[in-house]
Amino acid sequence: MQKATLTILGCGSSLPTNKNFPSSQLLEIRDKQYLIDCGEGTQIRMRQMGLKTSRMGHIFISHLHGDHCFGLIGLISTFGMLNRTADLHIHAHPDLEKIIDTQLQYFCSGLAFKIIFHAINPRKHELIFEDRSVQVFSIPLKHRVPTCGFLFEEKPRERHIIREMIDFYQIPTWRILKIKQGEDFVTEDGEIIPNDRLTTAPELPKRFAYCSDTAYSEKIIPIIKGVDCLYHEATFMEDEILRAKETQHSTARQTAEIAKKANVKKLIIGHYSARYNNQNELLNEARAVFQNTILGEDMTVYEV
Amino acid sequence: MQKATLTILGCGSSLPTNKNFPSSQLLEIRDKQYLIDCGEGTQIRMRQMGLKTSRMGHIFISHLHGDHCFGLIGLISTFGMLNRTADLHIHAHPDLEKIIDTQLQYFCSGLAFKIIFHAINPRKHELIFEDRSVQVFSIPLKHRVPTCGFLFEEKPRERHIIREMIDFYQIPTWRILKIKQGEDFVTEDGEIIPNDRLTTAPELPKRFAYCSDTAYSEKIIPIIKGVDCLYHEATFMEDEILRAKETQHSTARQTAEIAKKANVKKLIIGHYSARYNNQNELLNEARAVFQNTILGEDMTVYEV
Repeated sequence: MQKATLTILGCGSSLPTNKNFPSSQLLEIRDKQYLIDCGEGTQIRMRQMGLKTSRMGHIFISHLHGDHCFGLIGLISTFGMLNRTADLHIHAHPDLEKIIDTQLQYFCSGLAFKIIFHAINPRKHELIFEDRSVQVFSIPLKHRVPTCGFLFEEKPRERHIIREMIDFYQIPTWRILKIKQGEDFVTEDGEIIPNDRLTTAPELPKRFAYCSDTAYSEKIIPIIKGVDCLYHEATFMEDEILRAKETQHSTARQTAEIAKKANVKKLIIGHYSARYNNQNELLNEARAVFQNTILGEDMTVYEV
Repeated sequence: MQKATLTILGCGSSLPTNKNFPSSQLLEIRDKQYLIDCGEGTQIRMRQMGLKTSRMGHIFISHLHGDHCFGLIGLISTFGMLNRTADLHIHAHPDLEKIIDTQLQYFCSGLAFKIIFHAINPRKHELIFEDRSVQVFSIPLKHRVPTCGFLFEEKPRERHIIREMIDFYQIPTWRILKIKQGEDFVTEDGEIIPNDRLTTAPELPKRFAYCSDTAYSEKIIPIIKGVDCLYHEATFMEDEILRAKETQHSTARQTAEIAKKANVKKLIIGHYSARYNNQNELLNEARAVFQNTILGEDMTVYEV
């Protein structure tokens, strides 16, 4: 089953709490894992959840505040100890490479895998990566330092084979791939069997958007329009709107406004300020504006 | 009550597990906190335990492997956000300053407190720090990189006042401090009241030794002789003694041998390899040699 899932490893903000580690999420689409942000303790959360990370080739860092990247060096170092050999790609603001390089040289000499940095320009909305399964676009955000979110767009999925029809027309195995991709089948007698008699339509490709950290910004709406799942920070409640503005964060109500205006299918909030013991208050504030809001929680898996 | 306590924040080794974070401990003696090592997630553990860290002025780093220092930058960054103003002293191999400086400049500009690095020479056993409460000595260890443990020796405690006698002789408050320190009291008539009629003896000063990471090394025995509490790494069991030797770590049996030969009062083991799900096996191996062995556990407070 080709589900797309989002595992929240940490959805706290800069001060860790009893409940929340700093930002980090693992997005799984088809057979691939994409790590989004890597706050301190990311590798610990993975271990606590028993996650295998061999299918993780790409890490996307939204911005260079510590609560979004301090876990990188530990993760890389552990990959080294686990004898990883596959390339590791890091997509981030170009400054990251310089900062982490001193540490890599000191702590991670002789790694058996390559680390390849890809510089992101956080001010531009553009395609920053694609593989067989997804395209990833940057989403310029509004924060105290250059920051971008990420839009993951799954590529069209293959159609589902109707086993009985394949048997009935005795279609050879080597034709199946093309049929999954939508081709008709031509029998030895020249009869054309239309594809929709052999297959059923696949699920629609999933779209997931990650927007953290950011002040309220309507500019992102056209980019995230109609996504299946939006993760958007909701650091504060509305009564702290001045503090939100000053620190370039969003309130739960503002976040819900964005979700509503972008007509997304589902909103997950997170990046809660450590001041909120009862995060349900943030949830309620958001739900008053956008009903289908979910309270993000650490070590929890969500269907995209 | 002037107890000395040791709080283990993390006693895992390089790979974090479901149970154990990497190395970090908080030693509290009298009114002071001393942090020993600072693996990834140290500040998270402190938060999880609700520890206040305002009395922490000194951090001691045993060696520059990631599992003993990757948590430093996050901790310092958080101190900055919490508006710390008190100086922070870091005692470590001199390379640490260079490595962390790039990060400090990028992530921690404008801190309202000073960070003062004190270079340790891990090859020498010497006094590296003292304040009103303790003296701290380095303990040269045997590991793949320059490493030292730390011996904390509490300074002699004040004698306990016998309230009734103070009242009886109508001793003024301003004399109490000197009497606690052992002075006799002279009445207005010139009568000498010997100190031991006014006070009782204090508890003996505590001695705590931290030895991680290290291969079996009898050279440390004279230094740690008779300590109240020894924390010593026990990464492996005896059946992995070759691996222990190769990686310059100790087995549980070797650790217990050291404790026995040094005639310590109590041994706490830790720094367990991630391979051991059942750490009681390590405990049993150590106890066969040295009975008063305790299995170190994360987020646990021990009396020194």
